[in-house]
Amino acid sequence: MRGAILYGPRDVRFDERETPTIIERTDAIISISMACICGSDLWPYRGLNPMDGPTPMGHEYCGIVEEVGPAVTSVNRGQFVIGSFFASDNTCPHCRAGYQTSCEHMEAVIGAQAPMLRVPLADGTLVPTLEVPSEDLIPSLLALSDVMGTGWFAADAANVKPGGTVVVVGDGAVGLLGALSAKHMGAERIIVMSRHSSRQKLAVDFGATDIVTERGDEGVARIKELTNGIGADSVLECVGTEESMTQAIQSTRPGGSVGYVGVPHGISIDGAELFFTHVRLHGGPAPVRRYLPNLIELVLDDKMNPGKVFDLTLPLDQVAEGYRAMDERRAIKTLLRP
Amino acid sequence: MRGAILYGPRDVRFDERETPTIIERTDAIISISMACICGSDLWPYRGLNPMDGPTPMGHEYCGIVEEVGPAVTSVNRGQFVIGSFFASDNTCPHCRAGYQTSCEHMEAVIGAQAPMLRVPLADGTLVPTLEVPSEDLIPSLLALSDVMGTGWFAADAANVKPGGTVVVVGDGAVGLLGALSAKHMGAERIIVMSRHSSRQKLAVDFGATDIVTERGDEGVARIKELTNGIGADSVLECVGTEESMTQAIQSTRPGGSVGYVGVPHGISIDGAELFFTHVRLHGGPAPVRRYLPNLIELVLDDKMNPGKVFDLTLPLDQVAEGYRAMDERRAIKTLLRP
Repeated sequence: MRGAILYGPRDVRFDERETPTIIERTDAIISISMACICGSDLWPYRGLNPMDGPTPMGHEYCGIVEEVGPAVTSVNRGQFVIGSFFASDNTCPHCRAGYQTSCEHMEAVIGAQAPMLRVPLADGTLVPTLEVPSEDLIPSLLALSDVMGTGWFAADAANVKPGGTVVVVGDGAVGLLGALSAKHMGAERIIVMSRHSSRQKLAVDFGATDIVTERGDEGVARIKELTNGIGADSVLECVGTEESMTQAIQSTRPGGSVGYVGVPHGISIDGAELFFTHVRLHGGPAPVRRYLPNLIELVLDDKMNPGKVFDLTLPLDQVAEGYRAMDERRAIKTLLRP
Repeated sequence: MRGAILYGPRDVRFDERETPTIIERTDAIISISMACICGSDLWPYRGLNPMDGPTPMGHEYCGIVEEVGPAVTSVNRGQFVIGSFFASDNTCPHCRAGYQTSCEHMEAVIGAQAPMLRVPLADGTLVPTLEVPSEDLIPSLLALSDVMGTGWFAADAANVKPGGTVVVVGDGAVGLLGALSAKHMGAERIIVMSRHSSRQKLAVDFGATDIVTERGDEGVARIKELTNGIGADSVLECVGTEESMTQAIQSTRPGGSVGYVGVPHGISIDGAELFFTHVRLHGGPAPVRRYLPNLIELVLDDKMNPGKVFDLTLPLDQVAEGYRAMDERRAIKTLLRP
């Protein structure tokens, strides 16, 4: 089997890999319907994460179950399934509390940019649909595996409420889907910070009511101006840099919430500064598994179309070009067809 | 008039000060019924805060209204009142959202360790009782002005719920009253971290179910042991050091909350570490004003007795000894009688 392997900074190749097999009794093997590239894949792609040799890439997936281990009881061969980027047992206390990405038996799912994938803890991780969905729904269902679930968590962690004022920091795919999430949660005003016309357009499609192009202190000043000096009720931090986190915190009203889902790189939060803002902070790796049943229903009922975030579709063997396009911000998010 | 003045590190004196007068039309002057020393007074007392010359001390107060400015409409001469350590208009958007300590017109109340006090923004800041309360209730009512309101906010910010498991980091007066607050909010298990027998005893009086004497990594390990490896639902951080904040975050379950009210000194929070804990953070200067009506009722109805936190009572002119006793941890909290 061939799949995406990262060999070093900006060196991703569609190359020979072992075909996945059942290793644990709780595994499932699925054939990938469609795959994609995550914004977080760009960190190692850009050489910003430590690497330990060649690494199979990809952690967003949906597909058809080909084989299950002997201990798997809730998914069957032939079913269409979607799962989270982290496998979880869905029975431990953290899973039961809705934090499956802190599962006591949590395991990363690795190598989804390939025709076949091994998913650990299949019973806890995978959610099957009643029928195999039609082709046109696959991009939106695939998005639930990470990017949409993460945008949804950002909005949930930021305590988005009907009638509320929301700011989204970051116009990547997660930020844009954070805006879509806020819209679905009933936010009245959704301000997206973006400087890229194609992303601004999609933000508005997803429900943004205002676009702010300023950044840093000027961006914060503009948010204050748009909110009568008060700040936003909810701010979604979807980047992961110190600048974006600072901007998020300073854009939030006292007692308001920052939901942060950008994987933090070099962020240090000053305790005294945070203290006097009265801002609530919550974030982390999105517990996508918690949201999957609800979000799958919304997609199947045609109530949301997060798949619109894919603005480049390539055959899987051109995965390297998919990374390049996202790295150079020519594409928001790349869909890959095996 | 004489009152407490801090001249430099560990040099507080009962010394001549100007008698307060109405300056703004919205001021009130009150005669102090009882005053006290706050844990946060120890930061400047120990030379850990920058000082700008001799400073009148004290910000916890209750007393009788002696005079009001011409714009004051809701409190009258002769009424017994309690107010927050920060004055607020109680009408701006932040006040209406319950964050009076982020009021757009917020002003510190200064100089309460004295017979008389000027309170700015009297209408927004002061809450009068229907009658002048009896002497024995004054310590508990005084406590509502800061220390009890702050403990209550810590528990509220930590999202304490009926049946929940709570950890209190810090056995100072705020931490102890945080335990009392958690008890009133219906927490089932209240674990107080303390090494001092008199404080442990008071913690148990206030509702603590467990005492943990270990600190740092050992303290965290002990909390995990007591919570079946899960961590606490709610953790009250009532110290303000990096060590205590780290201990608080690491003692919390994924999705659980840290309420932090210890004024942060030298705390820096690593974004990536916080991210993977899934812990919620909320804190800041306690919006005591929000809680005053409810807490006053609880005290007047004899449903709580936060005044038990005062374990040393001195005449106001011995204020210096009051500071020494708290600095040396001989006293939990000093009550001062004018």
